[in-house]
Amino acid sequence: MGKINISSALQHIGEEIDLFGWIDIRRDHGKLIFFDLRDASDKIQVVALPKYTDAHNVADTLRPEWVVKIHGVVNKRPEKMINDKQSNGAIEFEAMTITVLSEAKELPFEKDSSINLDTYLDYLPLTLRADKQRAIFKVQAVIIGAFRDYLVSQGFTEFQAPKLIGEDAEGGANSFNVEYFGHTAHLAQSPQLYKQIMVGVFERVFTTGNVYRAEKHSTSRHLNEYTSLDIEMGFIKDHTDVMQMERDILAHIIEELKKRCESEFVFLGAKIPDIPIEIPFIKFRKAQEIIKKEFGVDCKEEPDLDPEHERLICEYVKKQFNSDFIFVTHFPISKRPFYTYEDEDDPGYAKGGDLLFRGAEITTLAQRIHDYDKLVASMKKKNLDSEKFSFYLQAFKYGLPPHGGFGLGLERFTTKLLGLSNVKEATLFPRDLNRIDILLSQ
Amino acid sequence: MGKINISSALQHIGEEIDLFGWIDIRRDHGKLIFFDLRDASDKIQVVALPKYTDAHNVADTLRPEWVVKIHGVVNKRPEKMINDKQSNGAIEFEAMTITVLSEAKELPFEKDSSINLDTYLDYLPLTLRADKQRAIFKVQAVIIGAFRDYLVSQGFTEFQAPKLIGEDAEGGANSFNVEYFGHTAHLAQSPQLYKQIMVGVFERVFTTGNVYRAEKHSTSRHLNEYTSLDIEMGFIKDHTDVMQMERDILAHIIEELKKRCESEFVFLGAKIPDIPIEIPFIKFRKAQEIIKKEFGVDCKEEPDLDPEHERLICEYVKKQFNSDFIFVTHFPISKRPFYTYEDEDDPGYAKGGDLLFRGAEITTLAQRIHDYDKLVASMKKKNLDSEKFSFYLQAFKYGLPPHGGFGLGLERFTTKLLGLSNVKEATLFPRDLNRIDILLSQ
Repeated sequence: MGKINISSALQHIGEEIDLFGWIDIRRDHGKLIFFDLRDASDKIQVVALPKYTDAHNVADTLRPEWVVKIHGVVNKRPEKMINDKQSNGAIEFEAMTITVLSEAKELPFEKDSSINLDTYLDYLPLTLRADKQRAIFKVQAVIIGAFRDYLVSQGFTEFQAPKLIGEDAEGGANSFNVEYFGHTAHLAQSPQLYKQIMVGVFERVFTTGNVYRAEKHSTSRHLNEYTSLDIEMGFIKDHTDVMQMERDILAHIIEELKKRCESEFVFLGAKIPDIPIEIPFIKFRKAQEIIKKEFGVDCKEEPDLDPEHERLICEYVKKQFNSDFIFVTHFPISKRPFYTYEDEDDPGYAKGGDLLFRGAEITTLAQRIHDYDKLVASMKKKNLDSEKFSFYLQAFKYGLPPHGGFGLGLERFTTKLLGLSNVKEATLFPRDLNRIDILLSQ
Repeated sequence: MGKINISSALQHIGEEIDLFGWIDIRRDHGKLIFFDLRDASDKIQVVALPKYTDAHNVADTLRPEWVVKIHGVVNKRPEKMINDKQSNGAIEFEAMTITVLSEAKELPFEKDSSINLDTYLDYLPLTLRADKQRAIFKVQAVIIGAFRDYLVSQGFTEFQAPKLIGEDAEGGANSFNVEYFGHTAHLAQSPQLYKQIMVGVFERVFTTGNVYRAEKHSTSRHLNEYTSLDIEMGFIKDHTDVMQMERDILAHIIEELKKRCESEFVFLGAKIPDIPIEIPFIKFRKAQEIIKKEFGVDCKEEPDLDPEHERLICEYVKKQFNSDFIFVTHFPISKRPFYTYEDEDDPGYAKGGDLLFRGAEITTLAQRIHDYDKLVASMKKKNLDSEKFSFYLQAFKYGLPPHGGFGLGLERFTTKLLGLSNVKEATLFPRDLNRIDILLSQ
């Protein structure tokens, strides 16, 4: 496994080494053939001189995305050729032999060129190789890794939530149907019921994985399959313990991004956010008042914030508290799922809320009802048949502590973090109304 | 977040502290009420003395699985009461006040009692709280965490594979159908095609998540939804690079299990395996010869090993090489998926194979075809319509290096590691022909 990454080439100046990668961009200058060699770690400029006849002959045939092994020597560039903007801008790789490992057909367009979203999606196996996309999905990998690492350090246990389910946590609406041996199963919209069950086993749990929404609208912020980062924790005082935990998780993610993804943020023109020691929080009704007072938009009769209201309240919070994050709590309990805990001190409103970040909701968070009888009563109020939830209800029948948790949409968080305009840009293989990899026939 | 875990109680001898947890087992001795308090970390014996009237009165009402907060003092036990077999066997917790956080109904059976598999599955929200199950799923959480950690340390990038797919990697057999906005989609049987695409983006990738097999047989080693730990790596010499990587991953997992799960293995009566520096490997035909010679079972006309053959070859390898692991390579290419690389030096046979562990296959591993034209030809040979794979084929059209990878079934590996008799015992919420949480109506 002695493959040298291109990002380590600087440590081999003057040495003969092998490098492996893809042809990125080619430039000929008379008899000199220049091209960039790219691997997952970085790029380096390669030069093929006529004096190495074989290498020069092979270099002459190379086209973008061909895969090669190059034996050569790492040289310092002459002073005037140094490019400060590239990490390997002070060196170049002089090819002595070139072996073609894989050829490529002619590209439909240049790899890093700007194309419209549909073309981008049609050609994902190629377009995901662009510098922009590699930066986005490296950041995403760091986010999910840091999320898990922090939770493990806090005594949380990972579990694998099933996605094939019978009755649905959110009451059956918007769930995909699966043909299951003569029965109809569903795809889970969240791991909610299972993570509550698991509080009875491990107190503090998390799970990461795909969830599904059979929503028909096609917007820049919805996906039919996305990745949910979910936690649930027992023995909480109330929802503020969950808020503090989410803050601490995000703080750890941000710290890791600063350590490991600074160059990706610079390249994407995005700023890694700072996070306050305590994220500010306001009640929903207060948020509505602020929106009216500050922006003249009256939404006080509405039971929820719509995307425009979320944007406005974030604008206000940024100005007022210099925070990219804001918790809006105490939405009307009538509009929240059946397992949401009602605030005894503010009847009609939920102990929990949404975390907004740079203009959009990225998390729903709450304390849950832990008492069996209250939970059954809450189901009844929502016209849900508690019989259908008999499996889940056992967790409460046999003793569950006060608990709460949240779900964080990985793709939406990535979108806001990197300032992308569409959540599909933060999803490797987005599924929507019209597309599963290729356009669905009409 | 100042909750003290029961596993830390030993550090608080003589102190007044709060402990939180579930009532595990209760024993009365005249006026003295004893019970075990359990949290996710451990158990401790609690005693309620008549002198604390309130605590004693509450203690008198407590039943198994009630959730409580107890304020009390950690005492050393008298010498003759010390129980060496319990981590907290030298101390007990004297309750001064007890607060009930959640009551529980009467249990249908004692929590750690031995019950049949169907009853176990009917009552999972309760039965998963048994010591045995908590040990199993703690081990499983450590396996998946160690798997990811090692790969990140080796320059692999995590990605999220879609599970809702159009055409299927394995040719469409045994896949579940999903109603998708007037179309029929499928649930992925593996992330195979996507991880190969991702080699073009990040060279070395991994993904963990659910996969689906609509197989109708109900055996002790099959699941309809399971967790697959998948890697794919570019720029390999051949399949032996993948074998070495899998060995190194497993070595890291084993090291972590030794560090973090020793007591779970002791409790479950299981042995953490040792792993050789190089896992022995034999070709499929050689394995057939050995099975005939050593056990008198003639399977030389068969194109694959069946479970009994896997068991026998493992028995032989354990005796011969003292290894719990064995790679069987070079199965007939005709029986392997279309993307499998044929060995130029052994035509008709695959560059790859299965990893067997303690009697069963836990991994399929191979070098893949990376040349576009060869891959299309291989599809044709298998009567697959390459047009349907046009999205995937772009990865090859636009240059992919020699690569290979494997998928490891998390639940099956856990089963074999812990010596369980049924893979359902290593699956939190197993789905089978007849069950999604509850029995499906007939």
